[in-house]
Amino acid sequence: MDLSSYLADMKNLVDSELDGVLPSDGSVLCEAMRYSALAPGKRIRGILVLESFRICGGYEKKVIPFACAVELLHTFSLIHDDLPSMDNDDLRRGLPTCHKKFGEATAILAADGLFALAYEIMSCKDTREKIDNNGAVLDSIERISLAIGPGGMCLGQCNDMLSEGKNITLDDLKNIHSKKTGALISACIYCGARLAGAGIKQIEKLEQYASHVGLAFQIKDDILDLIGTSRELGKNPGSDEKRDKATFPSIVGKEKAAVMLENERTLAVSALEEFGEKAEVLSSLADHIVSRTR
Amino acid sequence: MDLSSYLADMKNLVDSELDGVLPSDGSVLCEAMRYSALAPGKRIRGILVLESFRICGGYEKKVIPFACAVELLHTFSLIHDDLPSMDNDDLRRGLPTCHKKFGEATAILAADGLFALAYEIMSCKDTREKIDNNGAVLDSIERISLAIGPGGMCLGQCNDMLSEGKNITLDDLKNIHSKKTGALISACIYCGARLAGAGIKQIEKLEQYASHVGLAFQIKDDILDLIGTSRELGKNPGSDEKRDKATFPSIVGKEKAAVMLENERTLAVSALEEFGEKAEVLSSLADHIVSRTR
Repeated sequence: MDLSSYLADMKNLVDSELDGVLPSDGSVLCEAMRYSALAPGKRIRGILVLESFRICGGYEKKVIPFACAVELLHTFSLIHDDLPSMDNDDLRRGLPTCHKKFGEATAILAADGLFALAYEIMSCKDTREKIDNNGAVLDSIERISLAIGPGGMCLGQCNDMLSEGKNITLDDLKNIHSKKTGALISACIYCGARLAGAGIKQIEKLEQYASHVGLAFQIKDDILDLIGTSRELGKNPGSDEKRDKATFPSIVGKEKAAVMLENERTLAVSALEEFGEKAEVLSSLADHIVSRTR
Repeated sequence: MDLSSYLADMKNLVDSELDGVLPSDGSVLCEAMRYSALAPGKRIRGILVLESFRICGGYEKKVIPFACAVELLHTFSLIHDDLPSMDNDDLRRGLPTCHKKFGEATAILAADGLFALAYEIMSCKDTREKIDNNGAVLDSIERISLAIGPGGMCLGQCNDMLSEGKNITLDDLKNIHSKKTGALISACIYCGARLAGAGIKQIEKLEQYASHVGLAFQIKDDILDLIGTSRELGKNPGSDEKRDKATFPSIVGKEKAAVMLENERTLAVSALEEFGEKAEVLSSLADHIVSRTR
């Protein structure tokens, strides 16, 4: 299978569905929501939902509303993280950040709008008809909420900011990122599996995969922030160093970080063993996350 | 029935449940979430859920998770609306606003955390067991998401800010507030009824009540902003005038606004006719909204 063209197809699918679910009523709010949500993202979270669903036997693209929802939620978090009072970033996905383009107030509300829209999509009748299992839909909504809330992404971002300029341990850093990035990635994998009707054992294995992929993703992000260019990344590199932020390379060194990265990739891939060939895409996705240049 | 002591009991119930659902892990994030969510609010939205549930035959306090959720969502919106880039308010519910107390970044994230927590509470297994109707739970989640998202509260707040300093018509103003305040109030009433298993006709009547109560609520808010004191209001009065914001009194005059307010109250109460004595609390709540001094 040609993974890169398969991933491109999946990304295009998510992009086109996002375009369809985002309202366009001519308001500034909707314009800002569309601007950020349709900016060229990698759509890794959406693809994780689709693939986890597929390898657990889910039929066709019925899970696409959840793939869109996690991408909307990811964009919500990027807009808020980029704000002047937080990471104060000017560039995102190769474009001026939402607040640079539309002003802070509109950016904050556009993110909130994406947040609410994600939940509308997950709970609406059309999605329920597609999935035909209200219990699984509610389990997924609950899991995603836990991943975002005060035990997940919001706490991770808060602790990440509080850690700036401080000496923290490798375990502290892992803990921050397991909440800030890992929780939503795990939730994506969980939702795909749960919505396909997977059993507990399958879900467990996939969650193992997700936790290693999530960590690999963050280690790679930190390495790219150190060595990438803004043209490649679509955001300004060196921002961790500028803000005196602990990163995997800054704590363990660049070489050891690369070893950790490879180790997480291996662990991610081996968690997929029992899925056999069906897991080819998720397995290659782990390679892709490790070798990407943006 | 002594309405004020009944309302005080309901408010205490919501307050004590909120205290129980808000995490307290010692993090700054949770401290900020608790600070804003447990500040002395009127809990009108939570009480609307409880009462709408009760008069549609809902059993006991099974709907309390939804009453908490709408209060968390209301607090989320207050924290973001108070931010320097939006309404820039220093005082809320008699206390310094969340960003004054914890800084902007933590305030933004605390609000986001409340947002996610609300959805976790609405979708969790405990709530589902209480309600025992997953379809109704999902209908309610969908309706609340619509009330908050880009067709509801977020759009209302965005348009409200954009209207500052502009001449707008009475219809424009009604439209802004039907989205900014009215949509969530209607959703509260809808959820209570839907979760109690009410029929379409009952829900329609209650939604009529909600739309009039929502408008009455906003007209009264505008009047209080004009004539109230910060001690009574728990927030700084005169902020509409300061920001050159159109309000009901500024567009139609103080006397005509008072007439409109009374008119909305009457319409709200008459929508409740077929519920008879059971609607006593909702009816008195309309009176209370009109006569309140904060």
